[in-house]
Amino acid sequence: MKHKKIIAVLGGNVAKKEIYEKAYQVGKIIAEKNYILICGGLGGVMEAVSKGAKENDGLTIGILPGGNKGDANPYIDIPIVTAMSNARNAIIARSCDIAIAIDGKYGTLSEIAYCLNFGKIVLGIDTYQIEGITTIKDVEEIKKYL
Amino acid sequence: MKHKKIIAVLGGNVAKKEIYEKAYQVGKIIAEKNYILICGGLGGVMEAVSKGAKENDGLTIGILPGGNKGDANPYIDIPIVTAMSNARNAIIARSCDIAIAIDGKYGTLSEIAYCLNFGKIVLGIDTYQIEGITTIKDVEEIKKYL
Amino acid sequence: MKHKKIIAVLGGNVAKKEIYEKAYQVGKIIAEKNYILICGGLGGVMEAVSKGAKENDGLTIGILPGGNKGDANPYIDIPIVTAMSNARNAIIARSCDIAIAIDGKYGTLSEIAYCLNFGKIVLGIDTYQIEGITTIKDVEEIKKYL
Amino acid sequence: MKHKKIIAVLGGNVAKKEIYEKAYQVGKIIAEKNYILICGGLGGVMEAVSKGAKENDGLTIGILPGGNKGDANPYIDIPIVTAMSNARNAIIARSCDIAIAIDGKYGTLSEIAYCLNFGKIVLGIDTYQIEGITTIKDVEEIKKYL
Repeated sequence: MKHKKIIAVLGGNVAKKEIYEKAYQVGKIIAEKNYILICGGLGGVMEAVSKGAKENDGLTIGILPGGNKGDANPYIDIPIVTAMSNARNAIIARSCDIAIAIDGKYGTLSEIAYCLNFGKIVLGIDTYQIEGITTIKDVEEIKKYL
Repeated sequence: MKHKKIIAVLGGNVAKKEIYEKAYQVGKIIAEKNYILICGGLGGVMEAVSKGAKENDGLTIGILPGGNKGDANPYIDIPIVTAMSNARNAIIARSCDIAIAIDGKYGTLSEIAYCLNFGKIVLGIDTYQIEGITTIKDVEEIKKYL
Repeated sequence: MKHKKIIAVLGGNVAKKEIYEKAYQVGKIIAEKNYILICGGLGGVMEAVSKGAKENDGLTIGILPGGNKGDANPYIDIPIVTAMSNARNAIIARSCDIAIAIDGKYGTLSEIAYCLNFGKIVLGIDTYQIEGITTIKDVEEIKKYL
Repeated sequence: MKHKKIIAVLGGNVAKKEIYEKAYQVGKIIAEKNYILICGGLGGVMEAVSKGAKENDGLTIGILPGGNKGDANPYIDIPIVTAMSNARNAIIARSCDIAIAIDGKYGTLSEIAYCLNFGKIVLGIDTYQIEGITTIKDVEEIKKYL
């Protein structure tokens, strides 16, 4: 288990079908690479990527904003309960080796900003175009960076 | 003192002369309006705005990322010591009524993102152009929003 | 304003009449000494001490656990909104020069423990008797330590 | 993996030989029960319990106070990097199902207080005797509670 890479997936709590499917694929790839997934643990992109990882024998960690581990989506193996609301975004960004941002709004943007601030590689799929993000067109491309 | 508005100024720990002067002017206006300034408490833009507020009889609060109140710039009246590193950015964003972003890099971007996420008005001076920010050309314009 | 001492008062969200009155007296003394009060910003001991300080022209800071500044009791001048639940206890302990614990339960105990951990003087009134706390019998005695 | 219990071990960063050995045994039991260990991730009791768990095929999570995953002891599988100093104690307390406190000083006391505050069962081995803690004489006894 030790020295496995931890990959963060950043994204919102709701996701349209197309985004959900891309996030699922990202989770699948993370699991196939035998990496650990870390995310915010809730719904939308977080659920999709956790499902993709879990259904491919990956290990999933959810850094939850609320105070109840029951808030975690059903595909989270290890719920870390922070009760720190969005301040937990800093923990996700600190704990990952590489981050993949998918879609998302201002919450996701705060995670992206933290990751870039901490010098992490950030791959972006259908998300903000901030200087420092590596934009990915096709999900398969992420394999080159993992 | 009660019910005074709290204005956050978001910005980096280093500032070029021109930016420093704009931030000083912003601090001056905040003090003249009799509002409370909240910021990250360190150098650069944070120091300039604190100096501008302080030299005009304002009240200044610094939400410090480190564990020592001595880290505060000399113009901070009330150092709040978090020892939470950048996660303290969420506190600045939560505590303000209005935010003014000046210059800055990824740390500032995380603060902007939090403010927008929490539904705060964000005025931007020489900073990121994110959807949701109201870009300000001339520092005097901020008076319209305060 | 600068270099004023910041005194933390640690205590619970409910308080019996006798405790409320002691906390009020503590707040009064803090204000008379011209120090700044920092506390958790809610009810019970926090409200009583804020009221005592406020009604004697003191300055009061509430480090709120929730996400709304409206949670602050009516005697808080400056609400700092953390949305970090009890993790904000560490901020109170870090930010004070001296702490005074009054009554309280496990939440207060976590604040006491943090203060002692950070090397702060902790005065205790009707509270836990932990090695390191200076137990105070009569509220007036706190003047010796402030 | 899902629905595994998470057991927190609370303790200091240094440990005398006798305490280290007890903590090792506690880690061994947690692993044998097939539970997940969560702890502060550093040395002393945290290292001993992680070693005990790891050498018996357990899974170990370290909630690190600093900003570098390299701070984790060598027996941590999953380093969660908070950079929030002792405020991370609240996360350990929130995330566990049951807590075991071993030895320790004020930092450990803050963790105990949080756990009791959040309604968690706290078993105590050679540690503070606070109302609410179940004191354990012989390490083997913890099996009754896990």
